[in-house]
Amino acid sequence: MARLGKSSFEFASKPQLISSASFVSEKERTGPLGGDFDVCCKDDTLGLKSWEKAESRMFESAVRLALFKLGRRSEELDCLIGGDLLDQIISSGFAARELRAPFIGLYSACSTITEALMLGGMLMEGGFARLVACAASSHFSSVERQYRFPLEMGTQSTPTAQRTVTGAGCVLLASSDAGERTPVFENAAMTGGTIGTVVDYGVTDASNMGAAMAPAAAHTIKRHLEDTARDPSDFDLILTGDLGRFGTEMLLELLAGEGINIEAVHEDCGKLIFGDDPKTVCGGSGAGCAASVFASHILPKVDAGEYKKVLFLATGALLSPVSSLQGESIPAIAHAVVVEHAGRTERIGNTKRKE
Amino acid sequence: MARLGKSSFEFASKPQLISSASFVSEKERTGPLGGDFDVCCKDDTLGLKSWEKAESRMFESAVRLALFKLGRRSEELDCLIGGDLLDQIISSGFAARELRAPFIGLYSACSTITEALMLGGMLMEGGFARLVACAASSHFSSVERQYRFPLEMGTQSTPTAQRTVTGAGCVLLASSDAGERTPVFENAAMTGGTIGTVVDYGVTDASNMGAAMAPAAAHTIKRHLEDTARDPSDFDLILTGDLGRFGTEMLLELLAGEGINIEAVHEDCGKLIFGDDPKTVCGGSGAGCAASVFASHILPKVDAGEYKKVLFLATGALLSPVSSLQGESIPAIAHAVVVEHAGRTERIGNTKRKE
Repeated sequence: MARLGKSSFEFASKPQLISSASFVSEKERTGPLGGDFDVCCKDDTLGLKSWEKAESRMFESAVRLALFKLGRRSEELDCLIGGDLLDQIISSGFAARELRAPFIGLYSACSTITEALMLGGMLMEGGFARLVACAASSHFSSVERQYRFPLEMGTQSTPTAQRTVTGAGCVLLASSDAGERTPVFENAAMTGGTIGTVVDYGVTDASNMGAAMAPAAAHTIKRHLEDTARDPSDFDLILTGDLGRFGTEMLLELLAGEGINIEAVHEDCGKLIFGDDPKTVCGGSGAGCAASVFASHILPKVDAGEYKKVLFLATGALLSPVSSLQGESIPAIAHAVVVEHAGRTERIGNTKRKE
Repeated sequence: MARLGKSSFEFASKPQLISSASFVSEKERTGPLGGDFDVCCKDDTLGLKSWEKAESRMFESAVRLALFKLGRRSEELDCLIGGDLLDQIISSGFAARELRAPFIGLYSACSTITEALMLGGMLMEGGFARLVACAASSHFSSVERQYRFPLEMGTQSTPTAQRTVTGAGCVLLASSDAGERTPVFENAAMTGGTIGTVVDYGVTDASNMGAAMAPAAAHTIKRHLEDTARDPSDFDLILTGDLGRFGTEMLLELLAGEGINIEAVHEDCGKLIFGDDPKTVCGGSGAGCAASVFASHILPKVDAGEYKKVLFLATGALLSPVSSLQGESIPAIAHAVVVEHAGRTERIGNTKRKE
């Protein structure tokens, strides 16, 4: 049984994270992680007719680039798993049309990348796939006009606001028996995780996503530790998706109330991506935030052994403009995966490249 | 390796379909399948303040009812997998909040129920879950105003239009070692399927979903037959989700062009649910169409042995109002699962009820 406790699991087959890619805009490039991203565009329309089309192209390009690094094409994928924030996940759906790979579309808001990684690992463990692309994207301008206000209105940010990351991130998973001969990363494996449960503390302020999502993150962290009998000190990094500064404070406080202290090992992609830039207020957000930061900033460090064991949980706020207008509070979810520095050198010799 | 050919798979563990439930409105009750549905509501708001809230309650109720038939509660679920058509899948997300089970949110438009079944089976095969609820919903009134026009405008249907089903369907999967002692269905198992690939033939008419989705259905059927070296006659039913009358014609023609004739074994949930009612024009549609028809009309017949082997593929059109306004055509996808009449009596004796 690969299941642990109430909602956690482990991967006996240890799916390998063999390549990744990210595609962001100028704003992210000028942040502290700017040098880590693969592609940065000056014009966030990419010369296309809409931000939505541009976001879809970013999603597609991140997947193509992660494959390109292996000398692979998208047709060789056993499966593409992903999603985004736009209504009917059009960024991912239209990208999947171009990529021509079997496609599993998800909606989990900003928790998409960890939902995708988790499912990708499960498909591998069950023998359903040997090469899977997991990807997620978001775009400041397409999201602002969908969830908030037309950009032309020039509305001011509230003190708890976060800036949606314009970007896409893709991670390629390979089963350890796929025998990829020239992986970008040789020493990163997914060893388990926890399926998120929807949590709602009654927050109704759609400009304070951090507060809405922190309880979901706390719930998943607590459950993961309980299910696996682990302690925060078992990880050298517990990485949340996009809680931002306010949400991070709330997470630490919620966990402290449960007697769990993760302060020494906690980081948040939303805090990392824009650093102290006051214009982003509480930091970055969006499905592309955790995806691009993990793909390009964290994963290489796991591969290099800088991090030995990472609990990565992206957090998603499951609201819609309609649900907010109808007076609903904001439910949230956080799916978690464990990514470890784990050598695969011994397996390379006696396997051969697929096909 | 559980994988077959390019994108098909088989389940060695044969996950059991042990219970199901459906919740529809008066319109569906007066159709030819009316007697099969578990709950039919006269007032499609269920007395709640919005159609969106009602749809979420239908989703939740379908899951609760399928569990109730087993004497189970939602907290006992290892996982809830599902989605719907509303922006940010709020029907499912809010239902998941109430159901308090680990939740995997999907977006695959009207192909959601087969995507959920497929993933549920994969989780089981990998040992990640022993009891999974797969569910999907749609609501005529919430969908009309989101995708088309406010109902108050009283716009007339086009000759290729379909009526969105107001309803939700849930199927409960159990691993064969879960030892459910009192399953509603004892003789229905999922044995395989095919992951859909996005297909787009350039259809831009958002009032003709059947035409947009037929190529995806044809693609998945063809691939399934190729990957598994099967023939249409190996099935006594090939059941599409909601192609409706026009889409069905197109599917048969597309497959005929490939030398595949499924006419003798083909049915479509969208055609079945409203019969010849001229007001529904080409039939039913919506994520709740295939979900409720399969859960309440088809699955009991598989259990009873009326159908021995069913290829069930729900089809989804991956457009959004925004993508249509931006001049995009309509990509579509169809995920398929194989459901077979398969006894489990021999397994019941030596297993015990979970927990």
